[in-house]
Amino acid sequence: MSGYVRTLAERARAASLILAALDGAERAALIAAMAGQLDARSASILAANAEDVSRGEAAGLGAAMLDRLRLDPQRLAAIADALREVAAQADPLDGVTRSETRPNGLVIERKRVPLGLIAMIYESRPNVTADAAALCLKAGNAVLLRGGSEARASNAAIAAALHAALRERGLPEAAVSLIDDTAREHVLELLQLSDLIDLAIPRGGESLIRFVAEHARVPVVKHYKGVCHLYVDRAADPALALDLLVDGKASRPGVCNALETLLVHRDIADAFLPQALAALAARGVEVRGCERVRAYAPDLAVADDADYAAEYLDLIIAARVVDDLDQALVHIAQYGSDHTEVIATADPAAAEAFVRRTRSSAVMVNASSRFNDGGQLGLGAEIGISTTRLHAYGPMGVESLTIERFVVRGAGQVRHPESQHR
Amino acid sequence: MSGYVRTLAERARAASLILAALDGAERAALIAAMAGQLDARSASILAANAEDVSRGEAAGLGAAMLDRLRLDPQRLAAIADALREVAAQADPLDGVTRSETRPNGLVIERKRVPLGLIAMIYESRPNVTADAAALCLKAGNAVLLRGGSEARASNAAIAAALHAALRERGLPEAAVSLIDDTAREHVLELLQLSDLIDLAIPRGGESLIRFVAEHARVPVVKHYKGVCHLYVDRAADPALALDLLVDGKASRPGVCNALETLLVHRDIADAFLPQALAALAARGVEVRGCERVRAYAPDLAVADDADYAAEYLDLIIAARVVDDLDQALVHIAQYGSDHTEVIATADPAAAEAFVRRTRSSAVMVNASSRFNDGGQLGLGAEIGISTTRLHAYGPMGVESLTIERFVVRGAGQVRHPESQHR
Repeated sequence: MSGYVRTLAERARAASLILAALDGAERAALIAAMAGQLDARSASILAANAEDVSRGEAAGLGAAMLDRLRLDPQRLAAIADALREVAAQADPLDGVTRSETRPNGLVIERKRVPLGLIAMIYESRPNVTADAAALCLKAGNAVLLRGGSEARASNAAIAAALHAALRERGLPEAAVSLIDDTAREHVLELLQLSDLIDLAIPRGGESLIRFVAEHARVPVVKHYKGVCHLYVDRAADPALALDLLVDGKASRPGVCNALETLLVHRDIADAFLPQALAALAARGVEVRGCERVRAYAPDLAVADDADYAAEYLDLIIAARVVDDLDQALVHIAQYGSDHTEVIATADPAAAEAFVRRTRSSAVMVNASSRFNDGGQLGLGAEIGISTTRLHAYGPMGVESLTIERFVVRGAGQVRHPESQHR
Repeated sequence: MSGYVRTLAERARAASLILAALDGAERAALIAAMAGQLDARSASILAANAEDVSRGEAAGLGAAMLDRLRLDPQRLAAIADALREVAAQADPLDGVTRSETRPNGLVIERKRVPLGLIAMIYESRPNVTADAAALCLKAGNAVLLRGGSEARASNAAIAAALHAALRERGLPEAAVSLIDDTAREHVLELLQLSDLIDLAIPRGGESLIRFVAEHARVPVVKHYKGVCHLYVDRAADPALALDLLVDGKASRPGVCNALETLLVHRDIADAFLPQALAALAARGVEVRGCERVRAYAPDLAVADDADYAAEYLDLIIAARVVDDLDQALVHIAQYGSDHTEVIATADPAAAEAFVRRTRSSAVMVNASSRFNDGGQLGLGAEIGISTTRLHAYGPMGVESLTIERFVVRGAGQVRHPESQHR
């Protein structure tokens, strides 16, 4: 270990104490100032990004990766606007969450405080550098950022803008600390710093997240994959179910809240499957089906265990006819990823059984899986979607970057009467 | 790895799905039935405990350890009563935590669900076997218990009573799974089961907790030590501060919410320290002081860095005179353990600065540190006190054994208008 990351983290930790003492208006003004600096420095940020992109092209990065990496004036303006939206959100630290007066007169308040120092470990998207910093700062945290090597120049240029805003407001640059050296050993060092880092959030592909989970001595909130199911109940409106299917699979197949498996109650298969298969085919979606699905379209490939477990992130869907709700629930328990499950049904009892017996972070009754998103669920911007069943579950907004603690206000109360002198 | 613990955990995980589907009344009735079985089987539990105690005596266990291990009819009745209290508490899974209707008509509800499977790793106290099981079950979780080798027969006898109640109610015994083999390799195996265990809670000495933190691949909520401070502000009522000092240090020195360090503002030292030192001496408390404290009692030992960092858990306290509130806060930031801090002051501004600038799980204004306890803070029974700044911070009641997830109720809403066929 070089000690380079520890030194950065110690400075960021010291800065976190200063941030925690700011009030909500000061934190909002800081984030707005950061947006202003991104605008003011757009030329240098775009130049740095062009450097990353041409290096990526020379290295043979794929088109999707290059697209995630590339900034243009519109994209950069959108990043600055997203920061202004975070600045305008309600202060997550404001006020008292709960308050109770005990029989002995003690007033027990619960108040949200920042987590402290948050480490973000992410891949190619340079917007994460600004977004994650803004969300962490909004909740009074310092942040330690480690982006991907392919976005190194872009990240450094964005961080320089954020640092300018910190200086402008008389605050330590270390509040947003960038690990500007993408050697993997630095990630390993970071993950050991359990005395300094309160939470690590990996964002990226499954292999990055597994690497972090494998090596972390610091708490981690993970988002693995989204193997999201649509269950079409026998009491479903077939037209409504079709909308949910097409929206969930075809509107944006590469995202984690896209559908990956369709489960159809056998009693509605005749009324639903022929039009569903036609609609999917019309949108270029490949269906891999069980034997009962293939009865409607014998040319389809056979779905196997690997298909039911797959997060395709592509125009492919696994499809299975089930005997009843119970069989659908057993399928989801076996193959699901705790991300998002959808039921289409007009039967309230089936809906309640589905809600109660799935354990995923979001369950949708007659609504598209694509709504599992911080903005769509009313959280504002999100820093990730947790499939860890601890601290936060589902989309994580700024509130997920805080923790409730206890403030007790008394008039000299003691637990043991013998301690009383007055 | 033997696979023994994995097999147990797989069964417990399967049982967790059954528990999660019970309603609150069924969970309460189960816990009440467990209390009844503890009463009914008291003779066999006490006989098993006597076996542990005589084995412990033969092995030369210390008096404090033997006291923690020993059960008698009163202690066992108190364990059963504690279970009845948990049964009578409000259902933590009841109702909707928050609800919001979005502009597109979607109703976004947040509801608490169980964490799933919780592993408890603890030392000599056999009451933890029953307490932890009841708290986990109250929140709809299954539990995997691994107690200390010195309490092995007691834990098995208590678990047999809990299993009798599960059978009586037609529920799987695996809902409360005891690792009845205290080889340390089983703890290591347990800590790797990240696909099965949602949370591990170690309870015991610092070395146990460090071992768990070092080896865990599953999420852990830790409680390290309580280095709790009392800061006597210049605006304190000296008599009130004296009560907090004596209660905090002398009423029960061996617990984590006892005071370990006294910080006194220099302007109140003349008015406070002579009587404080006399009161501590009268209760047999050894004081280790800075030079300015020793000006009042030159015979005191000198406090060094190790004293300021110590969790004595004994009739010893470190004492220091500070120039002002800032210096007290710097001291707490350097030596504190995020557990409990107390300020004695009549100055609201000093109180607010102290609340805002300490990051501990509980901060007390004019109240004893000894109130940082689930029962005292109104949570009912507690499963531990978290000093981890994630998921739960401070005493953990049943609500800390749940997580909020999203339930979205719609009428066929989709994100992309092109998905709409109706």
